[in-house]
Amino acid sequence: MTPGDTIVAPTTPYGHSGVANIRISGSGALNILSKLSGGQVFSSRCVTLSSLKDLDENIIDRCLVTLFLGPESYTGEDVVEISSHGNPAIVDAFVRTVCACGGRLAEPGEFTRRAFLNGKIDLVQAEAVTAIIHSKSIESSRSQQKILGGSLSKILTSLQTGLSALLSRVEYQLDVSEEAVSISEKETLSSLLRGVTTTVKQLKGTYALGRLLNNGATVVIVGETNVGKSTLLNCLSGSDRAIVSDVPGTTRDSIEVELLLGGVPVLFIDTAGLRTTQDVVEKEGVNRTYRHIKAADLIISLTDRPNKKHFTQSNKPIINVLNKQDLRGEKTNSARVIHISSKQNKGIGALKNRVMRELGVNNISTEMTYLSTNRQYLAIKECSAALDRANSFIALSAFDCELFSFEIRASLDAVDSILGNTSPDDILNHVFATMCVGK
Amino acid sequence: MTPGDTIVAPTTPYGHSGVANIRISGSGALNILSKLSGGQVFSSRCVTLSSLKDLDENIIDRCLVTLFLGPESYTGEDVVEISSHGNPAIVDAFVRTVCACGGRLAEPGEFTRRAFLNGKIDLVQAEAVTAIIHSKSIESSRSQQKILGGSLSKILTSLQTGLSALLSRVEYQLDVSEEAVSISEKETLSSLLRGVTTTVKQLKGTYALGRLLNNGATVVIVGETNVGKSTLLNCLSGSDRAIVSDVPGTTRDSIEVELLLGGVPVLFIDTAGLRTTQDVVEKEGVNRTYRHIKAADLIISLTDRPNKKHFTQSNKPIINVLNKQDLRGEKTNSARVIHISSKQNKGIGALKNRVMRELGVNNISTEMTYLSTNRQYLAIKECSAALDRANSFIALSAFDCELFSFEIRASLDAVDSILGNTSPDDILNHVFATMCVGK
Repeated sequence: MTPGDTIVAPTTPYGHSGVANIRISGSGALNILSKLSGGQVFSSRCVTLSSLKDLDENIIDRCLVTLFLGPESYTGEDVVEISSHGNPAIVDAFVRTVCACGGRLAEPGEFTRRAFLNGKIDLVQAEAVTAIIHSKSIESSRSQQKILGGSLSKILTSLQTGLSALLSRVEYQLDVSEEAVSISEKETLSSLLRGVTTTVKQLKGTYALGRLLNNGATVVIVGETNVGKSTLLNCLSGSDRAIVSDVPGTTRDSIEVELLLGGVPVLFIDTAGLRTTQDVVEKEGVNRTYRHIKAADLIISLTDRPNKKHFTQSNKPIINVLNKQDLRGEKTNSARVIHISSKQNKGIGALKNRVMRELGVNNISTEMTYLSTNRQYLAIKECSAALDRANSFIALSAFDCELFSFEIRASLDAVDSILGNTSPDDILNHVFATMCVGK
Repeated sequence: MTPGDTIVAPTTPYGHSGVANIRISGSGALNILSKLSGGQVFSSRCVTLSSLKDLDENIIDRCLVTLFLGPESYTGEDVVEISSHGNPAIVDAFVRTVCACGGRLAEPGEFTRRAFLNGKIDLVQAEAVTAIIHSKSIESSRSQQKILGGSLSKILTSLQTGLSALLSRVEYQLDVSEEAVSISEKETLSSLLRGVTTTVKQLKGTYALGRLLNNGATVVIVGETNVGKSTLLNCLSGSDRAIVSDVPGTTRDSIEVELLLGGVPVLFIDTAGLRTTQDVVEKEGVNRTYRHIKAADLIISLTDRPNKKHFTQSNKPIINVLNKQDLRGEKTNSARVIHISSKQNKGIGALKNRVMRELGVNNISTEMTYLSTNRQYLAIKECSAALDRANSFIALSAFDCELFSFEIRASLDAVDSILGNTSPDDILNHVFATMCVGK
């Protein structure tokens, strides 16, 4: 590829702070640094104090400057990192001066896109960069560090190797052999197919936990009015986020609190109590409750008396919780029901544990490698489906080598696309546009 | 001094971004880096890629690490700068791990305080660091860069030299000479005193512009109801910040818009129109108008007819502005009055120029060195007053050498305190506590 034009962006958040970073990357980076510094000489990867000036020779800031000569840099191009005082006016002056020297403002994710285009990282590693920046827990970030380190790429590359071996074998049959495929050859193909299929199914199976770890889960608290849903939310979050009162129908807007449970961001939603009402605002609240139930991963059904019926109108997993234990004395929790007293803050820990178990949080290990984006999952699903079709062909007595080959190629294409080897531009645009400017 | 304990803090703003920086400083910095990196070797000022781990051997992040061996560092101590992915969970994990290894979270301004205590910078330079970070314009930042570079320190140091010379001369007279001070010696003392006094008065005179450049100014728009004050505010800011209507008394809350005029942040305040009213809310609005007038640097008095009287009940500088020029045809602006049409957005540029001239914005040069904090100004005022008193003594025929000496020493103390040579702890605390954590 031809070297990219020169891009610039702040890499640190907007604000007044000790330090701000500005990154410049591209074929003109060195030249621009020379202009800003009045011809000062920099060695690659050595931090140098420098008074950088604008084109009118006014000092913008005295900063620490580091030059990374390509290809030994984040993007693979010549990169200049400026560490200035953390003032938006200074950052802005740098960006404007670099642009006046022939640079342009980087688009979101453009530095990482260049790292990808220059072969520094593949597409799942690029996605891991985004995930590391946006992850809400250190556990999720740690899991993505493994992917950035190449754990997922390694699995996918070995899948590519397996599928390529299978493909070349069947294509040899198509191109060279004039006879029907022998039984022993069919068995070899079948065994190779089983091998890659096992890997693909396993990988596909990791997405549930990967999604949980990276995107979190939603738990909706439902129940009749006045059973203590808002008090429970406050107990769970250890705050007084929701207004509570003895008046049935106090909660109308849904109230959300996000908690980290075992590194998983779990969004608890307190909803309007389910009852038939003439109050227009409360009615809208009840409608919203049903919408939240639809989008939930798990439902906490709350009642306040043993003889009251629990919520059952959903196919989502439900934890039955009986509140106001303080009015009835100690009870042992069962698989069927958890006893709590929101008022006395009792049983909340047990409830949290049950929520974690139901969601599968306990099964997460940051030592494992998970698929973690929907894009990866959809591609591996496609791959898996193609392998299933290939498997159905091989089971037929009249084995159609061409159809078999077609499906293996489709599954290989799917794996290639995950790594970004063959991803069309719109996929690439989507992956990088979700990043922040400066990455 | 004994080397400080080890402190840590993020130096970049909180948020999700490409990069976050964490700074560690103190005698334990090297040891802590060794623990985090598993004994990796770092050379001073060389950027090194490193996978840093927590105490459970989990990778926190793969980051760029730079070691600055003291005294060649910001604080003068051993400093480690970690450049990680910009995620609060990662930053938090680093800070927690460093604290678990014997570090502690830095207090606001503590890194700069250590730079000061270790003689890397003096107190006016430390104040310049704060000003650079918080300045609202590149012009103000540029002026502070000069101070950080030592321009103000140089003037103050030469003042110290002048005052010390004067002091040693007069103390020689006190200690050694047994006769009355000779006329020629008095003349020498007087001439030396004139020299330093000139410098001190000049410096004292710079504060008005220094304050303007760094703290900005407040301009209050006053006038009767319905003369178009809110429309003028919207014109000035090029927005529809204030609600305008034909109903007199529309504006009740004061509405503020800050504009940069020649690098100076000027706060324009649109106020409730001045009239006697029974409306309680409007009455409170009118009260607030008077309070704003008290705090203003400049008043724009707006009327909408030539025969109406302008606001005069203040000793603040006032610009008289006549609105609704569109109803009367072109008029030439005079020193007495500026003609505008807010409705047609005419004359606004001329008004801004007049505001700049009245405030003194045009007299600001970023090449000049200004006193820029109230602390500096108060000390130089003290110094100036002491010199004035010394001068009055020298004019007397019965010259009291001891009193003269006392005042020269007081003025020298004042200059010392500006540079931080003799500042008491509470002054130091105040200077550094106004900084952000991480600086």
